[in-house]
Amino acid sequence: MPEAALTLIGAGPGDPEMITLKAIRALGSADVVLYDALVNPQLLEYAPKQAVCQFVGKRFGCHSLSQDEINELIISSAKQYGHVVRLKGGDPFVFGRAVEEIEAASRAGIRVKVVPGISSALSVPAMQMIPLTSRGVAESFWVTTGTTRSGDISGDVYLAARSTATVVILMAMSRIGAIMDIFKEAGKTNVPVAVIQNGTTDQEKILTGKVSGIAAEAEAQGVGNPAVIVIGEVVKWREQLAGIVASAQGHYIYEER
Amino acid sequence: MPEAALTLIGAGPGDPEMITLKAIRALGSADVVLYDALVNPQLLEYAPKQAVCQFVGKRFGCHSLSQDEINELIISSAKQYGHVVRLKGGDPFVFGRAVEEIEAASRAGIRVKVVPGISSALSVPAMQMIPLTSRGVAESFWVTTGTTRSGDISGDVYLAARSTATVVILMAMSRIGAIMDIFKEAGKTNVPVAVIQNGTTDQEKILTGKVSGIAAEAEAQGVGNPAVIVIGEVVKWREQLAGIVASAQGHYIYEER
Ligand SMILES: C[S@@+](CC[C@H](N)C(=O)[O-])C[C@H]1O[C@@H](n2cnc3c(N)ncnc32)[C@H](O)[C@@H]1O
Ligand SMILES: C[S@@+](CC[C@H](N)C(=O)[O-])C[C@H]1O[C@@H](n2cnc3c(N)ncnc32)[C@H](O)[C@@H]1O
Repeated sequence: MPEAALTLIGAGPGDPEMITLKAIRALGSADVVLYDALVNPQLLEYAPKQAVCQFVGKRFGCHSLSQDEINELIISSAKQYGHVVRLKGGDPFVFGRAVEEIEAASRAGIRVKVVPGISSALSVPAMQMIPLTSRGVAESFWVTTGTTRSGDISGDVYLAARSTATVVILMAMSRIGAIMDIFKEAGKTNVPVAVIQNGTTDQEKILTGKVSGIAAEAEAQGVGNPAVIVIGEVVKWREQLAGIVASAQGHYIYEER
Repeated sequence: MPEAALTLIGAGPGDPEMITLKAIRALGSADVVLYDALVNPQLLEYAPKQAVCQFVGKRFGCHSLSQDEINELIISSAKQYGHVVRLKGGDPFVFGRAVEEIEAASRAGIRVKVVPGISSALSVPAMQMIPLTSRGVAESFWVTTGTTRSGDISGDVYLAARSTATVVILMAMSRIGAIMDIFKEAGKTNVPVAVIQNGTTDQEKILTGKVSGIAAEAEAQGVGNPAVIVIGEVVKWREQLAGIVASAQGHYIYEER
């Protein structure tokens, strides 16, 4: 019987070069790789040729595995084959359901390791020259989700709207209108916002504007998931640092690598 | 004259394997590398042999360069030698003074790129099995600093103390007592806290406890900078996920790789 082991690996935001040496080394000893939808499949080339690679993400129109089914698959694969790599988009501990998988594996007596990754929350804005902190402008940043377990908008979004933090919201495109309303009520109507879809990939799209108009504009332009929303004065740096001039409306959309 | 260029690169938290392929490739074309105190010097091996490597961080008892002097050095090095790599601890845009350097270089007509890195804010807790988010436990995380430009504790710390976010504080060991008092006033006396010094390196130390006692304990045990402070229920996962048993006092200290 092979020694059962699980390594959760952060695959980064999409650009296949945004993976660490530690992650590549761990992939190199995989017997099984279970990978998610936002993982760049090119990364599977770092696994040994004989490793079993299985997609466990969501695909339009297909049945996708529930979290319980994934947990079961991790356990059965580890017992049958040995070293299971769970390859997850971004960083495994940022809205990655990693805790559930580690708990299930640990209970089944499987040794677990984690290899941190480059989270989309920080790197997707960074590659667009949007720094999450900036001395004297934003001395903190708050990363939250549009989709809590209960389905409601998290109470933290109300507090975040009142703070001076740069606010980064993941999984929020279906709620962007309601979220911007919360920022308007907090007096942030004119604060700059960026929405970046498919960041660091060939399909990247960016839309910038203000709290007041961004939700309607995102809908009009068809900017949707997967996207990172960044709200804060730091969004302005992009134009200044990248030498990019906005259109007369103060927002624009384009695709770039 | 060589083409002047600047690339800001995230060197990760200390473990030399926590660097990306993109960072290694950029280092490979450096003519000059200017590196900070928290960067693992092993990473300089990825620079070409003929590249000029210069330490620009703070060292005890030595004069250290001011931010203005570093900006000047970037510009003069780029003009004289060509491609300057600014190798920074963690991620360049997380309390990294990156904006100042990019602005100065852009004004001098130097082309600038950024390569995101693995921030200590997320990865140092992760390597201790502390996830910053956990479904139903913490649906957001807030990264802030103990040291604002004005020297005061940021007003955001007061809001963060009232949120359900996992709060991560960098550069805060000299203010840990005052910060914990803010959390006590927000009714968080019994919330778990971890303090991790020199995370992901051979000198790693971790101390866990509660808001009420951690500041005194950190002082007693001599745990200081550079450290990440994590405040939130997610700190409990460490014991459960890593199978670690706390001492009778509910806190412990040890060194591990
Ligand atoms: C389930 S969460 C996982 C986040 C991931 N663990 C991370 O650290 O990046 C998925 C969400 O991440 C964001 N996301 C991931 N990759 C992205 C990308 N390349 N561009 C924009 N957003 C992305 C989107 O908000 C998406 O809905
Ligand atoms: C000037 S800030 C730069 C942060 C860096 N840009 C990052 O993303 O990790 C320096 C602070 O980062 C934290 N830090 C950096 N490396 C660390 C490590 N290996 N262990 C613990 N804390 C670390 C400490 O709070 C330190 O005072």
